[in-house]
Amino acid sequence: MRVVRVSLGQRSYRILVGGGLLGLVGRECSRLGLGRRCAVVTDSMVGPLHGDAVMKSLGDAGFDAVQVTVPAGEKTKRWEMVAACHDALASARLERRSFVVALGGGVVGDLAGFVAATYLRGVSFVQVPTTLLAQVDSSVGGKVGINLAAGKNLVGAFHQPRLVVCDLDVLRNLPEREFRAGIAEVIKYGVIADAAMFRRLERGMDRLLARDPAELAWVVARSCAVKASVVGRDETESGLRAILNYGHTVGHALEAISAYGKWLHGEAIAVGQVVASELSVARMGMSRADADRVRALLERAGLPTGVNLSAGERRRLAEAMQLDKKVVGGEVRFVLARKVGQVEWGQPVPVADVVAAMCEDRGSATHGGAGREGFAASQIRA
Amino acid sequence: MRVVRVSLGQRSYRILVGGGLLGLVGRECSRLGLGRRCAVVTDSMVGPLHGDAVMKSLGDAGFDAVQVTVPAGEKTKRWEMVAACHDALASARLERRSFVVALGGGVVGDLAGFVAATYLRGVSFVQVPTTLLAQVDSSVGGKVGINLAAGKNLVGAFHQPRLVVCDLDVLRNLPEREFRAGIAEVIKYGVIADAAMFRRLERGMDRLLARDPAELAWVVARSCAVKASVVGRDETESGLRAILNYGHTVGHALEAISAYGKWLHGEAIAVGQVVASELSVARMGMSRADADRVRALLERAGLPTGVNLSAGERRRLAEAMQLDKKVVGGEVRFVLARKVGQVEWGQPVPVADVVAAMCEDRGSATHGGAGREGFAASQIRA
Repeated sequence: MRVVRVSLGQRSYRILVGGGLLGLVGRECSRLGLGRRCAVVTDSMVGPLHGDAVMKSLGDAGFDAVQVTVPAGEKTKRWEMVAACHDALASARLERRSFVVALGGGVVGDLAGFVAATYLRGVSFVQVPTTLLAQVDSSVGGKVGINLAAGKNLVGAFHQPRLVVCDLDVLRNLPEREFRAGIAEVIKYGVIADAAMFRRLERGMDRLLARDPAELAWVVARSCAVKASVVGRDETESGLRAILNYGHTVGHALEAISAYGKWLHGEAIAVGQVVASELSVARMGMSRADADRVRALLERAGLPTGVNLSAGERRRLAEAMQLDKKVVGGEVRFVLARKVGQVEWGQPVPVADVVAAMCEDRGSATHGGAGREGFAASQIRA
Repeated sequence: MRVVRVSLGQRSYRILVGGGLLGLVGRECSRLGLGRRCAVVTDSMVGPLHGDAVMKSLGDAGFDAVQVTVPAGEKTKRWEMVAACHDALASARLERRSFVVALGGGVVGDLAGFVAATYLRGVSFVQVPTTLLAQVDSSVGGKVGINLAAGKNLVGAFHQPRLVVCDLDVLRNLPEREFRAGIAEVIKYGVIADAAMFRRLERGMDRLLARDPAELAWVVARSCAVKASVVGRDETESGLRAILNYGHTVGHALEAISAYGKWLHGEAIAVGQVVASELSVARMGMSRADADRVRALLERAGLPTGVNLSAGERRRLAEAMQLDKKVVGGEVRFVLARKVGQVEWGQPVPVADVVAAMCEDRGSATHGGAGREGFAASQIRA
């Protein structure tokens, strides 16, 4: 078992990475000094697969656990579901020292974390992420929340988990498309902060796609370590933490205009990373070679790197970006790269330039524009 | 203008108390270094009275303000209203540096504060309380939130305002019953922390009930100072802050079993304070004379000090108390008094004893039991 520590003073916590960890959730929760009652929030996909294991582990450790199951899917991140969970917690008489266990992907973690952040003005919570994306990204760092019709994650809180348990065994059953979507965030860590990690991903992508246990353990732990390091230096995103949003401004806007159905988050930010790379070449002196490496690695992971947009979609995309939380004075602030492994946040970019960067046919050495967009579209429609 | 400071490090803020302050809201907000856009959240009662004054003040100071009006009444403290406000903020394109102004009583302050705490994971907010109760209590200290069917304030956050503006002129139009309800919290400050304040209230109750401007200014500023002192020493209620809940465990339960309609908050906690006093006589050595002084002062303020409960209501009251946020291990923790001006928190009391204390006919020297209960009932039905 690998252990990554997130250093946040009194709010510090450990991320456990390894096989067979679902059965240890109860034992690890016992070490936190919490109350006896807890609620396991999971969804209709993950609950039937892993709910019993976690409930048994908690019961064996002496906890009085109730399971709350929400519908699977991004649409669950809305107020109605938060209220339903709150009512379930009140019915189970959860108290201030009680806690919430989030068992599922990013949607469940974000929802359950927000429920925990707001129930009784905040109770403890434990993340048990069951997708690659949730293990390497959304379960770490304390950003929790829900969506509005107007945009993704527009409502939420900063509420750090007390513990994160990443059981690598649960990734075995993950659908291929979801697994690949998680790799988009892994690649991001290399781009924003760790050129050596990026090189290792270039060498080991085939092993990673084959879900080789050793490679997977290294990738999850290394990704968590990069995120933990950034979050430890800037918990509430007053500056540095913004670099974690590399590719996300465009990604979130793409998700918003397609009503959170068509795109997996990782797919949307894969496109977003390519757009950010192109803007970086134009504005930050990023080399064409590095931009092509980013695109090539995303493509090897089977991720979309472009998208065909109608004029109406472009307009809606521009509007959605204006609502991004990172907008200051109506201007979109981007994270852009100087090179693989080094980015800068807070770069102002006119929305029109972003949209233009998405729609240009650049015809780079490795990817013909038409072919690229065709590839992306087929990925998305898959 | 009196100024009371709440000392919370970087989250410190000022409470302004005086006449004619609505017109200064814009100027005072300008001093906070916030963004240009803001939303004034108010209700259908207060909006028509004071909305224009505050909107004009903000506009004159260069702010781009939008008004969001919710229905008046405790039922507005529910997640549907939070969601409606969030949508309104997103439509008005409020950004991270934008802010929310809460213009109204405790309901509006709690709702708008929770909206601000959760929109974009937290934006600034300014309290402009328009009831005595909100001015002396709910607008100060950062507790914000909404109700569940299972109980009051079960969902929320700690989110300090950046500024509190208490315009005493707005209290002139306050209905008599609401004004008296606010006095319940004022009396509470004397009981929990300030025997000299309690004595001054005994001397000056007639002037206060006549809304004498000088008396009102002293009472509001002194109440805020007591609350600010407590909050400054224990922001998130790890201990001391619990004393502010004197009378509230029973009060909240009374409100819950009557579905938030019959009782004003101040009326419910008036009864709660009498119950707490009786428990204090029995368990903490509080003198009968001091308990009678508390009851007498509440009665002089025209507040209920007892209630007739059916057997079914008693059972539901006991259940509601079990859901109180202060429950630890199923046991209700009370704030009880040693004497007027000195209380202790965290006193375990079996629920059965609380219910018994509510229903006994004690027949004290000053108040016959039957008469007392008749008085209370008539107050409540008024």
